This record gives sequence, C-alpha cells and structure tokens, in this order.
Amino acid sequence: MIKVGIIGATGYAGAEIARILLGHPEAEVVWYGSKSYVGEEFASIFGGFFKIIEDKCLDDNMEELADQVDVVFTATPQGLCASLINEDILNKVKVIDLSADFRLKDVAEYEKWYKIEHKAPSYIEEAVYGLCEINRDKIKDARLVANPGCYTTCSILTAYPLIKEGIIDPDTLIVDALSGVTGAGRGAKVANLFCEVNESVKPYGVATHRHTPEIEEQLGYAAGKKMVINFTPHLVPMNRGILATEYATLVKKDGKLPTEQEVRAVYEKYYGSEIFIRLLNSGVCPETRFVNSSNFVDIGFKIDERTGRIIMMGALDNLVKGAAGQAVQNMNIMFGLDETMGLRIVPRCP
Amino acid sequence: MIKVGIIGATGYAGAEIARILLGHPEAEVVWYGSKSYVGEEFASIFGGFFKIIEDKCLDDNMEELADQVDVVFTATPQGLCASLINEDILNKVKVIDLSADFRLKDVAEYEKWYKIEHKAPSYIEEAVYGLCEINRDKIKDARLVANPGCYTTCSILTAYPLIKEGIIDPDTLIVDALSGVTGAGRGAKVANLFCEVNESVKPYGVATHRHTPEIEEQLGYAAGKKMVINFTPHLVPMNRGILATEYATLVKKDGKLPTEQEVRAVYEKYYGSEIFIRLLNSGVCPETRFVNSSNFVDIGFKIDERTGRIIMMGALDNLVKGAAGQAVQNMNIMFGLDETMGLRIVPRCP
Amino acid sequence: MIKVGIIGATGYAGAEIARILLGHPEAEVVWYGSKSYVGEEFASIFGGFFKIIEDKCLDDNMEELADQVDVVFTATPQGLCASLINEDILNKVKVIDLSADFRLKDVAEYEKWYKIEHKAPSYIEEAVYGLCEINRDKIKDARLVANPGCYTTCSILTAYPLIKEGIIDPDTLIVDALSGVTGAGRGAKVANLFCEVNESVKPYGVATHRHTPEIEEQLGYAAGKKMVINFTPHLVPMNRGILATEYATLVKKDGKLPTEQEVRAVYEKYYGSEIFIRLLNSGVCPETRFVNSSNFVDIGFKIDERTGRIIMMGALDNLVKGAAGQAVQNMNIMFGLDETMGLRIVPRCP
Amino acid sequence: MIKVGIIGATGYAGAEIARILLGHPEAEVVWYGSKSYVGEEFASIFGGFFKIIEDKCLDDNMEELADQVDVVFTATPQGLCASLINEDILNKVKVIDLSADFRLKDVAEYEKWYKIEHKAPSYIEEAVYGLCEINRDKIKDARLVANPGCYTTCSILTAYPLIKEGIIDPDTLIVDALSGVTGAGRGAKVANLFCEVNESVKPYGVATHRHTPEIEEQLGYAAGKKMVINFTPHLVPMNRGILATEYATLVKKDGKLPTEQEVRAVYEKYYGSEIFIRLLNSGVCPETRFVNSSNFVDIGFKIDERTGRIIMMGALDNLVKGAAGQAVQNMNIMFGLDETMGLRIVPRCP
Repeated sequence: MIKVGIIGATGYAGAEIARILLGHPEAEVVWYGSKSYVGEEFASIFGGFFKIIEDKCLDDNMEELADQVDVVFTATPQGLCASLINEDILNKVKVIDLSADFRLKDVAEYEKWYKIEHKAPSYIEEAVYGLCEINRDKIKDARLVANPGCYTTCSILTAYPLIKEGIIDPDTLIVDALSGVTGAGRGAKVANLFCEVNESVKPYGVATHRHTPEIEEQLGYAAGKKMVINFTPHLVPMNRGILATEYATLVKKDGKLPTEQEVRAVYEKYYGSEIFIRLLNSGVCPETRFVNSSNFVDIGFKIDERTGRIIMMGALDNLVKGAAGQAVQNMNIMFGLDETMGLRIVPRCP
Repeated sequence: MIKVGIIGATGYAGAEIARILLGHPEAEVVWYGSKSYVGEEFASIFGGFFKIIEDKCLDDNMEELADQVDVVFTATPQGLCASLINEDILNKVKVIDLSADFRLKDVAEYEKWYKIEHKAPSYIEEAVYGLCEINRDKIKDARLVANPGCYTTCSILTAYPLIKEGIIDPDTLIVDALSGVTGAGRGAKVANLFCEVNESVKPYGVATHRHTPEIEEQLGYAAGKKMVINFTPHLVPMNRGILATEYATLVKKDGKLPTEQEVRAVYEKYYGSEIFIRLLNSGVCPETRFVNSSNFVDIGFKIDERTGRIIMMGALDNLVKGAAGQAVQNMNIMFGLDETMGLRIVPRCP
Repeated sequence: MIKVGIIGATGYAGAEIARILLGHPEAEVVWYGSKSYVGEEFASIFGGFFKIIEDKCLDDNMEELADQVDVVFTATPQGLCASLINEDILNKVKVIDLSADFRLKDVAEYEKWYKIEHKAPSYIEEAVYGLCEINRDKIKDARLVANPGCYTTCSILTAYPLIKEGIIDPDTLIVDALSGVTGAGRGAKVANLFCEVNESVKPYGVATHRHTPEIEEQLGYAAGKKMVINFTPHLVPMNRGILATEYATLVKKDGKLPTEQEVRAVYEKYYGSEIFIRLLNSGVCPETRFVNSSNFVDIGFKIDERTGRIIMMGALDNLVKGAAGQAVQNMNIMFGLDETMGLRIVPRCP
Repeated sequence: MIKVGIIGATGYAGAEIARILLGHPEAEVVWYGSKSYVGEEFASIFGGFFKIIEDKCLDDNMEELADQVDVVFTATPQGLCASLINEDILNKVKVIDLSADFRLKDVAEYEKWYKIEHKAPSYIEEAVYGLCEINRDKIKDARLVANPGCYTTCSILTAYPLIKEGIIDPDTLIVDALSGVTGAGRGAKVANLFCEVNESVKPYGVATHRHTPEIEEQLGYAAGKKMVINFTPHLVPMNRGILATEYATLVKKDGKLPTEQEVRAVYEKYYGSEIFIRLLNSGVCPETRFVNSSNFVDIGFKIDERTGRIIMMGALDNLVKGAAGQAVQNMNIMFGLDETMGLRIVPRCP
C-alpha cells in the first residue's frame, strides 16, 4: 500500500486527491497537510467526508512527511514546493507538484510570468512534465513530477497530434478557453464570491495568463520550434470544467485542405488506445458536463472549408484530469501500477 | 452476475441507475429501455457514458425483459409499472418500481392523489415499501418493491426515530422541503427550462403534493396511528439534492423537554449502525452538497427551548438515496448481497 | 432636490440605493461613503455604473455628511450607526439605518441576539420601525428610521393581516425562509465563495437567527401579545430574493375554518390599496423571479383543511423591498413625496 | 403616444420589449400577440407584470394590427415576418423585425443558412439593417427595419472601427462568443432544460451558426470587401448576456504595430459620443453582469505584442441591446424621438 501525503489538502485540488484516493486500491492518504486548518478534522471542512475520513489536518512539514510517506502531492500556491524540496527529500519520497514551480524549463521565463524568485532552480532540469499521455515514459522513473495546469492539459491535448503531424500551422494557433470557478481556488476573495461570479462571464489575464508559456513550451516540442500563441481564459459560473476552443489554419497539401477523415486518423494515431482521451464522433462537440468528476478529456473538431481553419475543442474537469486525477495518474505510472487505477470514474451528469 | 433491465433508462433516475451499476461488481445492465430513444445509442443521449456504455436503447417490452434479466427497475411515470406486471412476470423476475404505483397501501388514496386508475391493485398488498433502513427484513423476500419517493425518503428518515419513540407529537409535524431540478424529470416542459428556474425559488403543490400521503402512511406506522401533516415542496436552482426542514412539538416528560443528548440517543438507537445515515455532530446542519452523488442521508437537529419545538433537518441526493441508489440498495437486499455493494460512493463537492 | 449620503455604498444594499436613486427625480446621491475603497471611483467597483456615476468613494465622516446632505442611509454592519449618531447629527439630517441598531425596542434583547453593546440606547425609543405599509404615519415625522431586515419584511407582511384580525393562532406560527446570497453581504468569506454556495442549499442560524426577535416584536404588536416563533433561514444559490413559507393553525369560528374568501378579504382589507404588495390570484404561489429588482412583495396562501393550517407565502427582492427599496420608500415618506417615487420598477425576469 | 403591437410577446425578447416600453414616455403596447397563449392574461405567463399589465394575449393578425398600431415588433421565429408583410401593411405601419428575415441582402445566402424559402424577397432591398450606431441615418426613414441578432450586434460593434480604419486584417478575424440561455428562446426543448444546461458549457453551431453571414456582410461593408470569418458560439449557464472575444492580426505601419493609444483613438472616433457604447478603461475587460438589463455595449481590448494580434472584447445583454432594447432604439429613431428614450436603464448587478 502506497502511503500518501498531501500538502494543501484543504484546497479544492487537494481535497479532490483525497476523494479519488478513497477509491484507489493501492494507495492511502496518511497525511492531510493544511496551512489554515491544522488540528481540525478534515471532514469538518469538507463535510462530504464525514464518517469516511476521520483524520485531522496536519502541518506541511516536508521533512517529517518524507519519512512517513512514499509520495507527496503539493497542491499549493506557486513557490511553496520549490522552497521545500532538496536532495534529501527527493531521495526519500516521490514528489508530484500541482503548482507551476517545475513546469517551465526556463527559470527566467518562470520568474517573468510568475513574478517570484525560483527557490530550487537546480531541480527544474530533472523534473518531468507530467502530461501522462505524452510523457509516460519519462514519468516512470521520475523523482519529481510537475503536474500540468488545468487550462494547459486541455489546450495541449486538444491540439497536440495536429501540431506534431504538421496538419496545422503552429503560428496561427489561438486558444480561447472557459473555466469553472474551482479553478480560481478556495481563497477568500471578493472576486470569487457567489454574487460576483454568478450570472456573468468575463475574460481575464488576457495576453498575460501564466498558463500561456506552459502551453507554448509543450506544444513547441511537438512543433519542433518555438511557438507563440494567444491564450484567453474566461471565468464561467459553474463549479467545474475547462472547455478549450482552439483555432488554427490548416496546412494544405497539393493545394488541398486535409479531410475530416485525415484529421481523425491523426487523432486516432495518438489517442486511439488512450483510455482517458475520448475522440468524439463526427459533428459532436464536447460539453464539460460529460466529463464532470472524471479523468476524461473529450475532444472534437470541425474543419471550416470557408476559412481554411480547423476548430479544435477539448473539455475536461479541471479538478480531475486538470489537477488531482492527472496527479494520481502520474503516481500510478511512477509506482508501476495500472495507469488507470482508481481513475475509471464515470462522469457524473447532471 | 445479476442481469439488470431498466425501463425508463433515459430519464435522470434511470441513467443514474446505469451510472451506479457501472461500479457494482455483481450486477450488469443488459437492457436500457426507453420510450423516446429506441434504437439510439444510450451514450448519444448521456454523453458521459461515451466509450463506457456501448448499448443501444431498447423498448420497454416487459415480457421479453422478464425472460432475459433477473431484476427490472421501472423508472417511469406513474401507472406504467402497474400496467405491465402480472403473475407470470413476477414469477420470473424481481421488480423494483421507482414510480408511485405500489407505495400506498390504500388504492383509493392512490387514485385520489394521482388521479389515475390503478391497473394492478391486487399486487399492492404484496409490494414491499423499499425504505431499506426501516423495512430491510421484508425487502429480502419481496418480488415487488415500491421504491420510495425522494422527498419521502428524506422526510421520513429525518423524523422516524423521534416519532417511533414518542419524542415528538405527530399531530404537529410540518415538513418544509427543497428540491433540485432533476426531481422534476427530463420532460420538455417550459416550466423546467433553465431561464424559468434559474435565479428563483418557488413553492409548488402546496397542500396537494403527492408525496404527502406516502409520508403520512409510513410515519403513521411509526406513530401507531393515522397521521396528517403539512408538506410543502419548493423548487431550487440546482441540479441535485433534497433538503427537508421539519418542525414538531417536543413531548414533555415530567414537565421537561427532552435534552439534546436524549434526542441524540434516540437517533443513535435507530441509525447508529447504519452506513448510509449520518447523524451530524451537535450544531451542524446538513447541506445538500455534502451528500451529492452519494447514497447518504445527513441528519441534524436543533431543540428550540423558547418554542418547545424541535427542528429536524435531513439532506440527500434525490437521484441517489432518493431514487437510483436506494433502488440498488433494495436490489442488494433482495439478492442477498452486501447492502452497500456499489453504493459506497464518496460525495462529490464542489 | 434631496441631497443623499450613503455610508456603506460599496456593499450590495448601498450600491442598490445608488441604482434606485438614479431613477428618482427628487433625490441625488452626493456622498458615496465606503470603508474599504476611499478615493477609488465608485464605478470601478461596480462596473455597471461606468459612465453613469463618476464620483469617487468618500469616507464615513458623519459630522461632515450631516452638513452636506439632507438624509443619510447607513448600509453598514450592526453597531456602526449607533456609534455615529447624536443629537447634533439628528438635528441636521435624517437618518435611515439599514442595520439592526434601532429595530428592537428592548436594548437587552438587542445585546443578547447581536452580542454587542448598544452605543446609543437613548435613541431606541425615538427610532421608528420603517415597515412602510404598517408604520407609514409614524415614519412621516421621524428623524431616525430603523429600516427592517429582509427576512423580516417578508415574514411580517406575509402574516400581518391574519394575525391582526385573529385569523390564525400566533403561538403556532412557523416561518421557513429562503434567501439569495446577496443577503450574506459582500465580505470576503470562504463560506460565500461561488463554489461553496453553488449547487447546494443549507439551513443556518437555526433557532438563533437575529431576525427572529424582530419578527416576534412586530407581529406581537399585531397580536396584542408577546409572540415566540420558529424562524429558519436557508441559503439558496441565487443572487437575489427572499421567499417565506409560513405555517399557522387557523382559528375556528363556530367550529368552522375560515374560507379562502374570508382570508382573502382580510388581506384585501390591509393591502388592497397598497402599490407594493400584490395579493396573488387564488392558487398562485409567489416566485422570487417575479419580484426581482422591484419593490414588490408578492403574497399567496393556501388553506389546508386536512390539517386546519394555512400556508402563507411571501416573496420579495432582499436588496430592494428587503433593503434599499424600502429605505427609499421611507425617505419618500419622510420628505413628503409620493411614496412610490423612483420605485415603480418593473420586475426583471429572466 | 405611439401605439405598439408585439407579435411574439410571450417569448423572452417580446416580453422584454413590453418591460422596456413600460418605462417609455411616448409609446404604449396595445397588442400582445402570441401564438400559444391567445386569450390568456399576459401577466399570468410572466408573473412579474402582475397588476402592471392587465391585457390578455391576442393573436398575430397582422392585417388588424396594421389598422390599430403605429409600429409592429415581430419577435418571432424566422420566416413569419416575411410571410406577413406586404405593401398594404407597410403603408400603414412601421415594422421592426427581430427575426433574421431581412438581415441578409442576398436571398440565396438567407435560404442557404436558414434552410427556408424567403416569402418576401422583394422587401429585402428596402429593409434597413437596424444597427443603430452604424445605420442611424437610413433607419430614420425606413418602413421596415431588420433588427440585428444578439451575437451579431456584439460581434460587429466590437470590431467595426478597427476594420473600418484598416487597423486589423479582416481576413484574420475570429469571433469566439458566449451566450446566456435566454438566447436559445422559450421553446420547450430538452436541450434547454435547467439540468441539461446548468453546470456545463458547450460550443454549438461550429462553423455553421446563422449569425455568421450577418457578421460577415456587415463587417464586409466596413472592410470594403467580402469577408469570411470564424464564429463560434458557446452556451453558458446564465440567463442573460453575450460576450464576444475577437482575435485579429494588427496591420503594421512602417513595420510597427499600432499602439494602445492609437487603437483607443480609433474607437473614440466612432463611439466617443455614443451613449450606449462604453469604451472601457485601459486594462479593463467587459463582464456581462455590468451590462445586465441595460442597453449598453461594453468594449475593451488588449494588444498582444508577442503575437501581433489584438484581442477585442465586447459584452451586451442579449435581450436588450441584442434584441428588445435595440428594437426600441430603432423605433425611437424611426419616430424622430430622442434615441435613448426609455432606454437609459442602469445595469442591474448582482
């Protein structure tokens, strides 16, 4: 049985790891770390766990955690994980970081977009970017996994095969994305109050959102060159879900646009045997409700012959495939388990 | 492996049975019956099941079903189940009816409240009222189970021990209840459109709602006398959840009100070993989000010494403990399985 | 032109006063007081007012306000208004307090329920309870009006005529109420975050909510005796609206329950000429969407002959008739204007 | 006093015309036409109008209407208005059509996108496209105005000045838009039930939505050439609101991108004196809540120097500026009234 510690267990992503692991036959959480609720019963904060989880919240003492558990999930604000790890820790325990600390390979890029100093730049090189379907092999032997962001996972997976195979022009990629409010975290901010969010939508972080360089870096690997994209997130009045609508110009071959069948074949080539990526039937668009609570990414697309562009659309649950679910998927890979263990959750709708 | 047929699989309760049974190790659905979608893929209607359930919808031919399955769930409008069953059917297959056809023992009462003729009154006597925690023993051997209504399950379980033990005066019971919109079904009605329901609450069926006689009959058994209550349902803009707030005058003993400890002891006596009924800690009120997607009923109470009344509060998920979950729980009991099999679902919040 | 100052203009009720007064031909806001946003543009906090209100937020200096305006609205937490007023202030300016400071006539009662010391008990006697339809005559000459609470306004108006005329037994009154989330204010609290409130309902303040003594005191005047009631508020995922569902035992005359016509006649007697109270047609229940943004209270009722009780139901918009609208209505009365001036707002639905 | 008839008064747009005209000093509705509710009280369908509008619904007899009113609003499905008008009608009464019948100048284009035969193609030429801020002069003398679609109004106004002045490359325009659910109408469809829409977002009509050619035609006039764009609408769980996020490549001059100041100046040139178009401050993005219930369009933009693109963002209330409000604005222009009469509605938020 894998012993698990969660730092940041009382945030939405942390609590979702707890929920998922209750259904995992080979792992159990033994440490619910929290900055704000030390000493309080975990189930008093998330009442759904009443009579299911009886533990109290502990602090975020990484040293002690490293002695007691096999893997630590850090579901914390940027900067914390980098400030806690060192060689001794990584020799004792595997770390899956849900923050952005080890997602970008270029420390200057990190410091520019996140506006904080990186406390452990020496581990950036070693850290593996935990986008399971793409980096599965590297994740296997990793000590430190950088779990991708929610917008990022959705944006990358939706476009990846078409960029990798040169079907679309990388310079034309535009990602327009919608997010449920859990993506904004559980901090007490006026902007996230019910009455500020309900019955409205808004773009935010336009041309400056921190998931931009992460998408650019990863898709850039697929393109084989540096990419610069537009990424515009929007806040939508619902609890969970990311929907990415992505636009790119199709590359003509012999003066002709690729057909729907050709594009579909490319997606199938990369995702045909993936359990958690569902390529939707022709003409079907993804809806976030159909992936709710699950680890699925649903992908659809539409070729617009009038404009020569393709519209790619992806949906996932930001707390599951966009955070906790993918983190557990990474854990499964790192510990040599069936990758889907504990994650074959049927979407819950309505 | 128990073979299961669902009539009404494309309604919300029917689809929820399908969802739950995907996690049940001893049962599998082999017949997704539907009136409106015969021949269509089940997953094309509920996209969450894409690549999980590959079956097409079948009709609601009870004769054929009885030959092919071990148990039939009828998640259909009132009247249908009563029109389909007969001795031959019941000799071949167990029937769990999620409609109201066999909930009331008095056929006149049924016809008065539901305003339709009962097509199979001869089976009313035999049918067992499937409120698992109360009627477990009778359910074991039943051929036909009347699965309780969502409001009813919540309303009864919240007050049952206090009525049974004479802690409250049955003549003073008032049940004020709130429901999510899945309770209104999946029919195409203007009244249930998003923009008619969102940003509003309303009472409905005041003093005439059909769950009233069901609550009265069942609590009347506990009281040992006929009961007449007020029951007022309200529609609330959320997908799932029932919250019942119930008021009753406490019975004084030797001129004194019962204490919180005494009331708690009564609840513990009846529910202390129940997995699916969670008596909340002192001062904690139930919230529907904390039972979402699960088979739990959360119960809290507050004694008001100023008025001599007790306020009892219960919450459940109308599609699970209020419909599909309790139906599966009944199936488990009828087939001699662990009662909680497939039902230890962790609440999903947010 | 009446010059108006608002203390607490950046809360939801304060901003609603601003919105309403933009449509008032005889009053204009000249002071937008705020604790948190002094010096910032009011429209930068509530973007709806962009290019409509150009003022910056000022502080809450009551002395200076008293010199500059004709009336001050205090839309602030309990205790502030009482700490600011004195004889000098009240000689210069009329004060309409939206907090609870002057609603209860018994200072001990206030200090018990609100758990703070009252800083100006000498003005309690003078303050007029600003429930316009009931206390219109006293409001005319008041210097200090205690604007009623949102739950309170709805709960009182819904039951008032029937208590006043002895149609119902005051000792049996139970008020079960639902509120939109603006009622919880605009403070940055985790409990009011979108994802904590959305898709859930919960009771709170059970048997201890502070609007209880206010309802009891006012209805007690109608009953001609001290009343003790049960009042249970619930939080519902919508922005605006209060719905009160009230239960009471009907008083029989000559062994007979009053008829619907008799009850209706009583309501008509009190409210027949009121613009802002709409007695709904027989069989129609109020819905909060139909009073949204308006100053209306919609009232319906249903007699249950089976139990001998009546179910009274009232709905209002907590920010308008439950706060800002009633405050402006009080202002109109105090300044001798048409009581409906600026308040004939058509409900906005959906 | 202008006498107004509404055909389709019991749809959301029709009812919103009724709501707006209650605040219009020079117009009154004398005919509430409805296909489904003839003979029923209008206020029994939209309870907010109880005791405000006492009329019963009438049929949609255009002949009779033309004799009784000065202007007819047709808030009906495509095809109806075209089937009702003729020379006799247009000689008697002005017609403002909220459907798409007269929006496209090319009848073949209409029939291709709408898949119905056009019944009155001879009036297409005469009809004026009622985008007030652009076509004000032509609207003045029109007999027949084609009121623009909700997505269209938002999409066009947001990009218009930059296309007109050659700031952006028209061939690169991509419009990604979000809509509240009132945009889907009030028909009883499963897809628009609360539980199908709530807690989810979805794209729809991808590359095929009928507002596409309308945007292309109108912006094409500004560009001075035929335009082909991508337009992707999404359904969002809220009642009202359109948000358009638009992407285009900036045209360099002398190798340099235009500056924010230059772009702002272009917007100011076209909209600086417009009451209903609010150019937001630098760095501020529009939010639909801030235009709720009002006739405003809020516009913001952001230059992304990394990609050389501009992100333009517009927000409006689909029922007001996107339908009923603009229709009334057209009426004001057609009748020589102050264009803003009845429309200076302060946004309502929350």
